[in-house]
Amino acid sequence: MGKGTLLYAQSGGVTAVINASASAVIQTARAKKIKVLAAKNGILGALREELIDTSKMSLAQVKALAHTPGGAFGSCRFKLKSIEADFARYQRLLEVFKAHDVRWFLYNGGNDSADTALKLSQLASSSGYPLTCIGVPKTVDNDLVLTDCCPGFGSAAKYTAVSVAEAALDVAAMAETSTKVFVYEVMGRHAGWLAAAAGLAGKSADAAPQIILFPEIAFDEAKFLAKVKATVDKVGYCVVVVSEGLRHANGKFVAESEGSVDAFGHSQLGGVGPLIASLVKDKLSMKVHWTVPDYLQRSARHLASKTDLAHALAVGKAAVEYALKGMNGVMPIIVRTSDRPYRWKVQAESLDNIANAEKKMPADFISRDGYGITAACRTYLEPLIKGEAPPPYGADGLPKYVSPKFSLLATKLPRFTG
Amino acid sequence: MGKGTLLYAQSGGVTAVINASASAVIQTARAKKIKVLAAKNGILGALREELIDTSKMSLAQVKALAHTPGGAFGSCRFKLKSIEADFARYQRLLEVFKAHDVRWFLYNGGNDSADTALKLSQLASSSGYPLTCIGVPKTVDNDLVLTDCCPGFGSAAKYTAVSVAEAALDVAAMAETSTKVFVYEVMGRHAGWLAAAAGLAGKSADAAPQIILFPEIAFDEAKFLAKVKATVDKVGYCVVVVSEGLRHANGKFVAESEGSVDAFGHSQLGGVGPLIASLVKDKLSMKVHWTVPDYLQRSARHLASKTDLAHALAVGKAAVEYALKGMNGVMPIIVRTSDRPYRWKVQAESLDNIANAEKKMPADFISRDGYGITAACRTYLEPLIKGEAPPPYGADGLPKYVSPKFSLLATKLPRFTG
Repeated sequence: MGKGTLLYAQSGGVTAVINASASAVIQTARAKKIKVLAAKNGILGALREELIDTSKMSLAQVKALAHTPGGAFGSCRFKLKSIEADFARYQRLLEVFKAHDVRWFLYNGGNDSADTALKLSQLASSSGYPLTCIGVPKTVDNDLVLTDCCPGFGSAAKYTAVSVAEAALDVAAMAETSTKVFVYEVMGRHAGWLAAAAGLAGKSADAAPQIILFPEIAFDEAKFLAKVKATVDKVGYCVVVVSEGLRHANGKFVAESEGSVDAFGHSQLGGVGPLIASLVKDKLSMKVHWTVPDYLQRSARHLASKTDLAHALAVGKAAVEYALKGMNGVMPIIVRTSDRPYRWKVQAESLDNIANAEKKMPADFISRDGYGITAACRTYLEPLIKGEAPPPYGADGLPKYVSPKFSLLATKLPRFTG
Repeated sequence: MGKGTLLYAQSGGVTAVINASASAVIQTARAKKIKVLAAKNGILGALREELIDTSKMSLAQVKALAHTPGGAFGSCRFKLKSIEADFARYQRLLEVFKAHDVRWFLYNGGNDSADTALKLSQLASSSGYPLTCIGVPKTVDNDLVLTDCCPGFGSAAKYTAVSVAEAALDVAAMAETSTKVFVYEVMGRHAGWLAAAAGLAGKSADAAPQIILFPEIAFDEAKFLAKVKATVDKVGYCVVVVSEGLRHANGKFVAESEGSVDAFGHSQLGGVGPLIASLVKDKLSMKVHWTVPDYLQRSARHLASKTDLAHALAVGKAAVEYALKGMNGVMPIIVRTSDRPYRWKVQAESLDNIANAEKKMPADFISRDGYGITAACRTYLEPLIKGEAPPPYGADGLPKYVSPKFSLLATKLPRFTG
């Protein structure tokens, strides 16, 4: 090969389909005879010169990544600061890239990663090293700007809508003598995209979830309790979806406000779901149950959205194509060209326009009472959970997920202690 | 028809496949020209004479029940006491049965329901009313004796094993800079069947879940924390599965801090997961995350086990056949005739031998250190999660679950206020 290598790294919280992007990156590059290295545990592996040679992977392994959740090469939460503040690290990254002839760097993550990729591309350019940096979008939070949606979100959204629909059938069947109020906590600290996705579970006015508590709407305890009571009176039960990012009017997270202590005398961890459940139980004396799916919602590859998978594969493929064309400092984004039928395409957007920005839910996606989604929201969300893409299953009843063991490339540089 | 009707009722916590049993009951009886009534909300509907005429359901609706979770006719937590203590209720049930010419009563539930069906059959017999009572097994807890397993368990087990496997891939990818210990809470107040099922997620010694906290093994905090630390040191992360029924050496539930009590007078559990997570965080200063899937694990029809579905259908069919043969006071149970290949058959067992008994996990299903499952356990569990039986999905990306609206039969008796 000798014409340069491509380095791929995963960043931030993983998703059900980030490995599908990895699979597409590797397959596309292989078809063009480009060697793909992967950084172990994201940018940390690049700093430490812990690099994986993906050409050792069989085609079957590479293809199997596309149906395996998690982050096959390891990911990390590690944000580089400004070039000034983190100069030694940026320099080190360029040294590692030079040592392994990395000419293309693909960073698969959210807006922090877009920022890092952008800074690296600028530094390389100013230091005369020919490097093309591409961001590959990924986040269940769906909070990247400009792209219509983020790969990873659609599958988490589908998991949420299906799980809420299933639990609601359970609650409805038992409400007469058992649980009257069911509380479902979703991820989304800053924006209610996954909370909104729960709204897809029900289409009619009284269908579950009857109440969604969005991070965008300040929590009003009295109004909420009145709505729960009215719903139970009318429907017989009430399913409440609450975002982990729910806030009081003063801006504080509801999950932070209690400062409660558990049976061990330890500070209670997280859990706005159980807090809301306790509130309903104490104030309305109704039997409640609650669920916190936590990581299950972002790793449920078994229930991936076919649309989401297609997006993840497409941005991986486009990222390599852009890289090889030398389109420095861009990210392939999803552009929606039609709602019904749903049509989309991939196009390049400057990382400069994406880094460090955050997409909020449009105000007109939340119903007037603050507890539901609008038709506009449904039109936006529905295509994203469309279609099924189940993994293959083994004779043991489990999905055939792969977790290849990788050996690292021999290092060429002294150890980095920065 | 005029030759008698068959009454079907659902009892206790619903499952992903209890409606499949209902579907098989209705289809089998229809084929024999027997009219099937269903009690609304289980035995409560029978007491209140709130009966549904299932002959109004289209064949498509009846068939769709087989892929719909929850309890289509409603279930309840309402246990009749002894005939002496609850005489008026038993009498009322027989009056309702007589008024609607009910000659066959099928009660789909756990060991409490088996007890009620048995008592009813005895009372009918002693009062000269020709009634055949059949129990239809169902429970995610897998705690009925004599049957090899309980319909509903296999699907919950599959959900648990798959979800643990998926979350473990997520945690493994992020452990370097994020969550080191992940705690997954499973249902199972008295027996660790679902906790054991989580063990199917990993096959090798270091594979997740590295620690299962069974209700059968008294919680030893120091030993547990040492095992967590050793696992993180060796593997890089640790997945802990904890049963809601985990107890201290003094017999008290670890989660019992809430002190609330359900309709049966049981203390209401939920929340041992966050407790264990807090313990790890405070004592080991490691980043932890936790999940409590709660009802999701018993309503996840989207991830049903094909074996479990086959069991649920088979016991529904057999129950009708036994009923029409006049085999009073029996339950169709699952008998395993071979592990590999897995083979099973349905046979009749006396309710007398099933009612009020509880199957525990065999001691040799738990590994010597108390934190894992043995090969014998794996041999038992693996066939139960085998095969997939996904529901059909709509163009909206959601499973095509049905929740038919039923109108009740006209009442023939005065209102019952017992």
